[in-house]
Amino acid sequence: MRAATLKDVAVLAGVSVKTVSNVVNGYAFVKPENRRKVEEALIATGYRPNIGARNLRRGKTGFIALVLPELSIPYFGELAGLVITAAQAHGWNVLIEQTQGTRDRERTALTSMGPHMIDGAILSPQALSAEDFADLAPGVPLVMVGEHAVDVPIDHVAIDNVLAARTAVGHLAAIGRRRIASIGRNPHRGTAALRLEGYRAALAEAGLAEDEELSVPALEYHRRDGAQAMSRLLDLPERPDAVFCFNDLLAIGALRAAADRGVRVPEDLAIVGFDNTEESAYSIPSLTTIAPDKKAIAETAVSLIHGRSTDAAENATPFDLQDIQTPFALEIRESTIGRTRAPA
Amino acid sequence: MRAATLKDVAVLAGVSVKTVSNVVNGYAFVKPENRRKVEEALIATGYRPNIGARNLRRGKTGFIALVLPELSIPYFGELAGLVITAAQAHGWNVLIEQTQGTRDRERTALTSMGPHMIDGAILSPQALSAEDFADLAPGVPLVMVGEHAVDVPIDHVAIDNVLAARTAVGHLAAIGRRRIASIGRNPHRGTAALRLEGYRAALAEAGLAEDEELSVPALEYHRRDGAQAMSRLLDLPERPDAVFCFNDLLAIGALRAAADRGVRVPEDLAIVGFDNTEESAYSIPSLTTIAPDKKAIAETAVSLIHGRSTDAAENATPFDLQDIQTPFALEIRESTIGRTRAPA
Repeated sequence: MRAATLKDVAVLAGVSVKTVSNVVNGYAFVKPENRRKVEEALIATGYRPNIGARNLRRGKTGFIALVLPELSIPYFGELAGLVITAAQAHGWNVLIEQTQGTRDRERTALTSMGPHMIDGAILSPQALSAEDFADLAPGVPLVMVGEHAVDVPIDHVAIDNVLAARTAVGHLAAIGRRRIASIGRNPHRGTAALRLEGYRAALAEAGLAEDEELSVPALEYHRRDGAQAMSRLLDLPERPDAVFCFNDLLAIGALRAAADRGVRVPEDLAIVGFDNTEESAYSIPSLTTIAPDKKAIAETAVSLIHGRSTDAAENATPFDLQDIQTPFALEIRESTIGRTRAPA
Repeated sequence: MRAATLKDVAVLAGVSVKTVSNVVNGYAFVKPENRRKVEEALIATGYRPNIGARNLRRGKTGFIALVLPELSIPYFGELAGLVITAAQAHGWNVLIEQTQGTRDRERTALTSMGPHMIDGAILSPQALSAEDFADLAPGVPLVMVGEHAVDVPIDHVAIDNVLAARTAVGHLAAIGRRRIASIGRNPHRGTAALRLEGYRAALAEAGLAEDEELSVPALEYHRRDGAQAMSRLLDLPERPDAVFCFNDLLAIGALRAAADRGVRVPEDLAIVGFDNTEESAYSIPSLTTIAPDKKAIAETAVSLIHGRSTDAAENATPFDLQDIQTPFALEIRESTIGRTRAPA
């Protein structure tokens, strides 16, 4: 028996070939009764669309991948939502791979994708080595978002992390704090190195000596790690009067540990976070934080992939390696300057 | 020129056909040098795998869809992470569609998918009508998670929302509260109707009269909606001494509004949320909340799709419509019973 064609389906359904094609290709605006007729005819004829051939004609798979540590981390949940929205504008669906930031799973994410499955990928890696990138590159345009400890020749979108950290710590010095701690030091994270560099630069600018024991490392950047690190700082004979946390979750954990010890924020301890997750605007006290322009990061990353995949399709000269800095702001809230509204 | 075959690629790369197949099919464990040789040969020969044919052989597309309002809502971010993990265990990648809970975008999500693209879909709809489901069903197994205001004949996974709300409000009565408000009433949300029903049942059980003005509606369930609703309650001549919020974001907003007005939680006002997002364990005060077993919801939904898609492939008798209740707990924290740890 020969395979059923679109025309066979159209004849059986009593509609045009164009209508069958619209149903098969997933276009939204088909009359419900026509859709039902076509679907019945598709089943009756055993017609199966050939996605491989269709994508080959289009030169696209219709998918991009987003590889990130965990969706339950609010920064990544918010970023993923923005990437999906930006991708839809280019007709792409988004596949999300969660790696938990481990090298094994980041490697698996790279190797399990390829031009047969995706048109490009946005990566937020934590553990991949430069060799991994060279060995495992999936043969599609890649964009890295955020900072990574190793230098690899792929497009990159991020904020100026050193300047952002300097701005945050400069603010703590400007409100008169003199014993400023940091939470988040971690030799394996690219952002950590840059934020530590900015922290140190701001201390130097304010004429403050660096005290090694005030920079507490964090293996992970979850709330519990922030609470543990803050506890360590509050156990010191001479407590800090401010702390710069390398992300909002660490800061939320630090706030919680301070409350558990009866330490008042910001009177006894000012706290600054990083990421401007929505949670930070509602915490009590609300959190002063660095606000990266996440929408700009998502849109820039998607349009870089779009530009490169168009290049590839048209065989044009590819544009040069891109390293794009997106804007950020320092949102100043209660955790550094106290309540601005009077109680009723 | 005839199309290149796997064998052509293998000969050029100097590896086995099996190795080429492993690369093309995206298996992870291929020696990097072999992968590179195969990729070069794939490009040189112009070989393109036929995904449609491959999936037809497998009887699967390798994708399931997850249709939800917004990833930036922590409950959905956490649930999506768990669905991706559960889907991976069955060899599925997950496509995420964000609908913002609007009927238009929920309809588009249903119609843009079909058996050519996905093997099934997990839906968390807010606005779809029963007619939409009948008209637009994409012809793959569907599972609905959470509650929906309309009754449709598809598999369903949720907690017992009435009992959960009754448990939450019963706890407020048990700690001696007598003027218990609710935030989240909404005629268009299935969960809202059930949680309101549980709230009313608990009031009746505690011998408390219902006061209409104490049930404040919420159009959306974001932090800002909770803060606005709480402000309304605090403007009443006779303020409530407790409030049951229909999700954690509303409760976080309510906490914030109470703090802004100098209202002490839980002394003047006890607050209970719903969802047990990680944020609720770290807020100040930490939030008493209903904790649905999200992992069980994700795993049950994915295995229902798996069971139905296996049925379909083997032409076996499909199992009956499933309506599965997953477990929940009431996590009792500071927002109802106060601080349990002494300050240092």
